Amino acid sequence: MDERLVRAALGELPADLVIRNTSLVNVDTAEVERHVDVAVKDGRVAMVGDAGHCIGNKTKVVEAKGRYLTPGLLDAHLHVESSMLTLTEFARAVLPRGTTAVFIDPHEIANVLGLRGIRLLLGESKRLPLKVFVEIPPCVPSAPAFETTGAVLKSTNIITALGFEKVVGLGEVMNFPGVLGGDKNLHRVISAARGSKAVEGHAPGLLGKELAAYISAGVKSDHESTTGEEALERLRRGMKLELREGSVAKNLSALIKPILKLGLDTRHCLLATDDRQACDLLREGHVDHVLRRAIEEGVDPIAAIQMATINTAEHFGVQELGSLSPGKTADAVLVEDLRRFKVSRVFVNGKLMAERGKLLVNLPKFVYPNFARRTVRLRRRPTLDDFAVRVPRRAKWARVRLISAEGGRITTEHEVAELEVRNGVVLPDLERDVVRVAVVERHRGTGNVGLGFVRGFGLKEGALASSVGHDAHNLVVIGVGLEDMVHAINRVVALGGGLAAVSRGRMLATLELPIAGLMADKPAEEVCRKLRRLQAAASELGVGLKSPFMIMAFLPLAVIPKLRITDRGLVDIEKGELVDPIVEVVE
Amino acid sequence: MDERLVRAALGELPADLVIRNTSLVNVDTAEVERHVDVAVKDGRVAMVGDAGHCIGNKTKVVEAKGRYLTPGLLDAHLHVESSMLTLTEFARAVLPRGTTAVFIDPHEIANVLGLRGIRLLLGESKRLPLKVFVEIPPCVPSAPAFETTGAVLKSTNIITALGFEKVVGLGEVMNFPGVLGGDKNLHRVISAARGSKAVEGHAPGLLGKELAAYISAGVKSDHESTTGEEALERLRRGMKLELREGSVAKNLSALIKPILKLGLDTRHCLLATDDRQACDLLREGHVDHVLRRAIEEGVDPIAAIQMATINTAEHFGVQELGSLSPGKTADAVLVEDLRRFKVSRVFVNGKLMAERGKLLVNLPKFVYPNFARRTVRLRRRPTLDDFAVRVPRRAKWARVRLISAEGGRITTEHEVAELEVRNGVVLPDLERDVVRVAVVERHRGTGNVGLGFVRGFGLKEGALASSVGHDAHNLVVIGVGLEDMVHAINRVVALGGGLAAVSRGRMLATLELPIAGLMADKPAEEVCRKLRRLQAAASELGVGLKSPFMIMAFLPLAVIPKLRITDRGLVDIEKGELVDPIVEVVE
Repeated sequence: MDERLVRAALGELPADLVIRNTSLVNVDTAEVERHVDVAVKDGRVAMVGDAGHCIGNKTKVVEAKGRYLTPGLLDAHLHVESSMLTLTEFARAVLPRGTTAVFIDPHEIANVLGLRGIRLLLGESKRLPLKVFVEIPPCVPSAPAFETTGAVLKSTNIITALGFEKVVGLGEVMNFPGVLGGDKNLHRVISAARGSKAVEGHAPGLLGKELAAYISAGVKSDHESTTGEEALERLRRGMKLELREGSVAKNLSALIKPILKLGLDTRHCLLATDDRQACDLLREGHVDHVLRRAIEEGVDPIAAIQMATINTAEHFGVQELGSLSPGKTADAVLVEDLRRFKVSRVFVNGKLMAERGKLLVNLPKFVYPNFARRTVRLRRRPTLDDFAVRVPRRAKWARVRLISAEGGRITTEHEVAELEVRNGVVLPDLERDVVRVAVVERHRGTGNVGLGFVRGFGLKEGALASSVGHDAHNLVVIGVGLEDMVHAINRVVALGGGLAAVSRGRMLATLELPIAGLMADKPAEEVCRKLRRLQAAASELGVGLKSPFMIMAFLPLAVIPKLRITDRGLVDIEKGELVDPIVEVVE
Repeated sequence: MDERLVRAALGELPADLVIRNTSLVNVDTAEVERHVDVAVKDGRVAMVGDAGHCIGNKTKVVEAKGRYLTPGLLDAHLHVESSMLTLTEFARAVLPRGTTAVFIDPHEIANVLGLRGIRLLLGESKRLPLKVFVEIPPCVPSAPAFETTGAVLKSTNIITALGFEKVVGLGEVMNFPGVLGGDKNLHRVISAARGSKAVEGHAPGLLGKELAAYISAGVKSDHESTTGEEALERLRRGMKLELREGSVAKNLSALIKPILKLGLDTRHCLLATDDRQACDLLREGHVDHVLRRAIEEGVDPIAAIQMATINTAEHFGVQELGSLSPGKTADAVLVEDLRRFKVSRVFVNGKLMAERGKLLVNLPKFVYPNFARRTVRLRRRPTLDDFAVRVPRRAKWARVRLISAEGGRITTEHEVAELEVRNGVVLPDLERDVVRVAVVERHRGTGNVGLGFVRGFGLKEGALASSVGHDAHNLVVIGVGLEDMVHAINRVVALGGGLAAVSRGRMLATLELPIAGLMADKPAEEVCRKLRRLQAAASELGVGLKSPFMIMAFLPLAVIPKLRITDRGLVDIEKGELVDPIVEVVE
């Protein structure tokens, strides 16, 4: 292989492809080189410069006419499950946008299916033109004391998986209190990775000595910064800083501003999307969108392209990617101009793969095995009784703990309010925007149901249910009436996973997510259309949040402040304990 | 270990050392941070920032008083044998200069002793505070068709050695024609390294398609550029560019000028010394000297420091070095100011190791085994007859090939001149600065002697002999009279390797190099003193070159232009063949 590449560079073997007369965005030197040809053989770059001598009879010649050629774009950290698409459908959506490789943390599917889920994605990725590198999630479950997951990744499993092909390191080390507290298993897996692999951080708000301690343990990057202060301190203390621009968490602007202001070296800044929904991928784009956002914020276009190419490849030690230089994989993007960064053609392994936003090849269908499609397993179907918060029948009022999701952030507030009681059942209070919430365990048939109340969705009637509920991905439902809650949940169960919006006994909209209860087996366009209908339905029911199902999906995440709900009940994150929804009853 | 570091960062365990109030040269962000403390535990950085909480009763506190603290300096490519010092003595010379890690290519000792020689250096390095990383030389011998070496490294040996601890990659791939010509063994070893290890280049003058071919084969860095054009093309085509400033080859100025002029990203520029003599190490310094030279040439001091720290560590994938951030090795240098870069204190693994140019510890004595000390093995002692270039007795003149070393460069010119013949022996011509040269095989007792003539040394009488002769390290001698040549060579043999200057039967100066015939077992100061005497002696004998023994040592290097001499005879590099010193005789 290498010998053939050498011969192609020398002109002794004809190239397969020559892209002529590009304005090459050189991410090694941070300059644009004009009138440069790129010759490709066997999927790799053979020659960069004047490559006329590489052209033979069968060489495909693409005239770039001076357009910009960049390396294929890389996403430094994402959970593909958040798109609700299979990896294949995700690839179909992002390849035309110029993304040619992604570094995924399959945290969600691992919570449902364990290592088998990770292997599935690795297997699916093998036949895709999108290159997929994997970080092994070290915190499955993320909150073992408070939730029931479909799988547990033990430190021995994780260390084994670090040796799998295409595995580039550890996924996000969410349990930062565990790192600071000396959790032996966590330190063991980080130690196994730190010498030669990436170790992804997750340390929102951590600064000063705690941040130093976290980094000294071996964590090398972080995508959870939301403030300029966090960004600066992470870069200064040697971390790679992932500038995240997801569907909900949009942090790029806040993070890049002080870096630009101080004129710091941006070699350790990487672009990442973390969580991005299908509609946003289709409408705004993927890494190309983050890149445009960076340029809008004042980042020099070449520096921005470095953040999406060479910086990321160097971070992960993936030597074959990141720049268009001899020997590297011929993944490249032709764009009309650097500021608007509109992708016109995408080459993968030296083959034209997409043009003007359209993929030119059919991707192989990946058939998910039954074990991945039968992940919603309840002891029995829930009934009205399961979702009623009960107090003694003589009670008139109850003081209850409320999860406040007001403002549509992922973090919640912990409030207390008085709610009316009728026949021993605590009622929602629509005037104060308080509705019921429940989490139903769906992996092991425990029959666990966690109950509580939530404020801030704006729901005036009906119910919304979902099999996506971070990180255990039990079933979540919010609702006004118990009947609608039961109806919605039972539809999600019948779908084998999915989303449902119900009102007064009528099913308004659904999206089936049969794969691990997380992903659709439908094209991105259809998923987006159904999600839109669900959002419209939620909106008709009074919901004011932009992405109510995503906010709902984060209600169970028992590692971020302040009050969360899991299949085991309400979790007070600050106290680190399960708490009763009822504070006291008033007779 | 990691847990202790975490606890130290948090202040739960006292730090071993806190350097207070530094102006930290932050090579991650390319800025100077004022009033920053660095706390160290177990040899590693625990905390950077305000580290008052890390100080306990037994913590050593160093007040930096605002002085600059940089990471320990790294030399990206060097042959320690060129200093003629053992690794231990080399360490003693360079540690006080701020060098804390070196990436050595033990090419010379490997030509004499093979893998055993490399293992010796690895063994010696284990007990040294200087960190030593090793590149395995892939071209031993470098010119198998033209010379006899003490050892041959086969591709299987090389691939095995790539797995040794502290081995970071392949050493210089000197045989670039072999790479371009598809040499299978060479491609095999490069392929074994390229995925995750460094592959050092050696491609003087290579440009365009040949350079692309060389890079596409997997070569990742090059230290042999001498022109701005070479420098730019290497960086643009994805190579790491080593800016070399050795004792003879001083290329930094020519290479950095166009990079600065175009304002290119310097992240892929590394500082290297390649070959540096003991006297220069003592007088001018080591990486600190190269760094000062870079700053003199207009490189921003922080960018220059990056070239000697983070850039190099990232290139070799040595994650524990390169910056002063939590978790990394606490190798650090205190300097008074950044422009003059005068090193005042050097810390290694968090311990004060040198102060004001003096090493504060005694280094353990490494005892070289006998096999490394008995490497000069001749079939028999040379006699006058061995060094006479003979032609038929009736000849009056001979047209002979001359190696021209004029100008004291490593490359030579290929000239032809008429020399007088007396009694069938071709005579030197002092008026035209032509003297005799011979190379005597010293490894295997073959009895091979290569003969020729050399111009440009200025030698008016006597002879100079050496057991250092790249890359086979056979014995080299230049001289006017045959008696002095024999005398000089026999002294080198008697020393078990070394250098000697002789005139009219009198031994003027010597330096013993008993270890592999390459290295002294004496302190740097003594080696330098003896080298100076040798140079003074050479000067008395008329030699005008600054480093005559070094230039002489390169005469046998049969991989660089244009005419060379080995134990097999004269080699015409452009034709790629052995040639007779006699072109024709005139009767």
